[in-house]
Amino acid sequence: MNARVKSSDIPRGFSFSSAACGIKKSGLDLALIVSETPAAAAAMFTTNRVQAAPVLVSQAHLKRSRSKLRAIIVNSGNANCCTGSDGRAASTATTTEVARELAELHPSQILVCSTGVIGVPLRVEKILKAVPALVRARSEKGEAFAQVTRAIMTTDTRPKWAAAKCRIGGPGKQKTVRIIGCCKGAGMIQPNMATMLAFLATDAAISPALIARALRGAVAKTFNAITVDGDTSTNDTVAILANGASGARKITREDSDFKKFRAALEVVCRALALKIVEDGEGAQRVIEIEVRGAPSERAADQVARTIANSPLVKTALAGADPNWGRILAAAGRAGVAFDYERVDIKLAGLLVCKRGREHPFSERIAHHKMLAKYVPIVVEMRSGKGRATMWTCDFTGEYVTINASYRT
Amino acid sequence: MNARVKSSDIPRGFSFSSAACGIKKSGLDLALIVSETPAAAAAMFTTNRVQAAPVLVSQAHLKRSRSKLRAIIVNSGNANCCTGSDGRAASTATTTEVARELAELHPSQILVCSTGVIGVPLRVEKILKAVPALVRARSEKGEAFAQVTRAIMTTDTRPKWAAAKCRIGGPGKQKTVRIIGCCKGAGMIQPNMATMLAFLATDAAISPALIARALRGAVAKTFNAITVDGDTSTNDTVAILANGASGARKITREDSDFKKFRAALEVVCRALALKIVEDGEGAQRVIEIEVRGAPSERAADQVARTIANSPLVKTALAGADPNWGRILAAAGRAGVAFDYERVDIKLAGLLVCKRGREHPFSERIAHHKMLAKYVPIVVEMRSGKGRATMWTCDFTGEYVTINASYRT
Repeated sequence: MNARVKSSDIPRGFSFSSAACGIKKSGLDLALIVSETPAAAAAMFTTNRVQAAPVLVSQAHLKRSRSKLRAIIVNSGNANCCTGSDGRAASTATTTEVARELAELHPSQILVCSTGVIGVPLRVEKILKAVPALVRARSEKGEAFAQVTRAIMTTDTRPKWAAAKCRIGGPGKQKTVRIIGCCKGAGMIQPNMATMLAFLATDAAISPALIARALRGAVAKTFNAITVDGDTSTNDTVAILANGASGARKITREDSDFKKFRAALEVVCRALALKIVEDGEGAQRVIEIEVRGAPSERAADQVARTIANSPLVKTALAGADPNWGRILAAAGRAGVAFDYERVDIKLAGLLVCKRGREHPFSERIAHHKMLAKYVPIVVEMRSGKGRATMWTCDFTGEYVTINASYRT
Repeated sequence: MNARVKSSDIPRGFSFSSAACGIKKSGLDLALIVSETPAAAAAMFTTNRVQAAPVLVSQAHLKRSRSKLRAIIVNSGNANCCTGSDGRAASTATTTEVARELAELHPSQILVCSTGVIGVPLRVEKILKAVPALVRARSEKGEAFAQVTRAIMTTDTRPKWAAAKCRIGGPGKQKTVRIIGCCKGAGMIQPNMATMLAFLATDAAISPALIARALRGAVAKTFNAITVDGDTSTNDTVAILANGASGARKITREDSDFKKFRAALEVVCRALALKIVEDGEGAQRVIEIEVRGAPSERAADQVARTIANSPLVKTALAGADPNWGRILAAAGRAGVAFDYERVDIKLAGLLVCKRGREHPFSERIAHHKMLAKYVPIVVEMRSGKGRATMWTCDFTGEYVTINASYRT
């Protein structure tokens, strides 16, 4: 996916804006995504018991607006988490200001997100001061969207976005529907909910119930199947706005149009999720962990997740060391009953473990193959029909360096 | 605890021996601990589903000998795990050889342990060849024990041992009982079972049932309350031999003598467990995580464990960064329901978070305090009476360097 956003990738009826309001020491730190008409909306939030103020406020707004939203405002540099009632007041004030500037909307039509350091009071006055110009400056151009992808970054080394199109409608009446999304990730990425910020916009016409269903399905197979370090943030949010501006037929049931839309949404979500893993803090390579033949789907997921989060596996991958014993040992502590003497492991395409024992392979060739940007691991358990795929990255000294002094 | 082992620390009736048999590229890699008379024995093994051959063989021997053992033989440099039926044959052959050389014992009186790389066939002929001289060379001297503490090391940077004494018996008939222990750890240290190799010897007279109970109790509060990286090894074993050679009264019920013995055993186990954390791969400092006021003991344990295994918390500690938000966020994903706006956090003695919000503190002073070798973290949840304490170490670039090329 090319880094240059073309205006033809942008769904109809959306505009974008960004600003440097001074929460970060330098650079863009405020972003706005606006649908020019009320959009069917869906969002998924962190499962962490510690939920940031913007997560609480956004959940309430989604409910009160009956899932009809007009805009998403995002700041980077401060998570507005563990900031008490002042923090909630700050998130609410932000949405109130955006609603007023956007021609007298109700604040509940605005979603608000924050990312950055936890526990430091948010200087909301900086945001409030920047909102009027932010609202005025918005544009439908690809470049405006590209600026948004930069404004939401924290320790990300590069902006992340993806787009897809599909054709919706009966024969002869098909219209193009566009989906675009951007996200930020880097550290604190762990499955089981959103695990980062991701914003999706589409000009499809679709009911709130169905957009929520489509989002849930796509997130389960994409954002919830990645992990960087097993930590779950307090602010994670995936949100989508669908405004119907494409003029395509409205999707109101799970028909073939819905399936086409959901497939396109999954393409965008998967591309975004993989970009998060690729840009994992300090990551050199993406690891795909495919578990087959597990006692159940759930067991497959547990085994894949435990391998993906094992520091010993991830450091071996950093060194391109074909240490399959660590993979099998991680599987062994996943809480799943299985006979390890039935297990085969393929590493970067090479069979290295057969029936729980070493299968002869060339260390030199294995090491060479593992130096690739994308290393697949296949664990065949021969204990049932459960399958799961997870993506993670290797664990390097650079990760430690980034995180040892994040605040200071 | 001084590194010099005095012969007076050694329990009566035990002898020790070590050798360099060539499994490691260089240095001592074979150790033998012998009780000159049959000893009441207890052992706890890894909970990993992938159990190494020596774990399987030792479990069987403990059962068959009705917990009456004579010796423990240990090799470092190769875990003899994922080595199939050849691996099991190797472990059995090792015990058979030791039993023969020790004047016609039954092999089931011998425990066998291995530590090192997984999945590589064990060159057992090297061990078998070394056993006769190993058995002959054994000695009751402190120096012989000190050599054992070195022979069991892998990536450990220093040997680990601890000793304690207690007085057993009624008034006027008290005799000194000695307990000594050594262990190896470093990486793949995770609670919920043995989590490393630890060997304990005592000249207390005690029934097999009570020595097992004492060991379980001590391990729960010590070895099972430490974590380096959340990975559980396939070979973890804690074993104790009690031969009664002190001449002290036999402990046959849970009386005051049993309590004195158990307390002394816990002292030794705690000292050993903390040495493992101090010597965690790449560790700069030990972190004590105390959770108070949790909804239950189990909840306290889950919260403490999740904090202790969070890469984001551990890297912040490597940088002596008072990032309490990461501690609270880790607590939030522990699967325990609580109101984070009741939580206080003390970091290195400083209150940094009060009722879920930042409590004003000096970054400079906090950073300075966190540069210590021992950093306590107290999480007061105000949600019940559950308590738990865990020990871990910080997560440094050095950990990654050690583990990125362990095999090669």
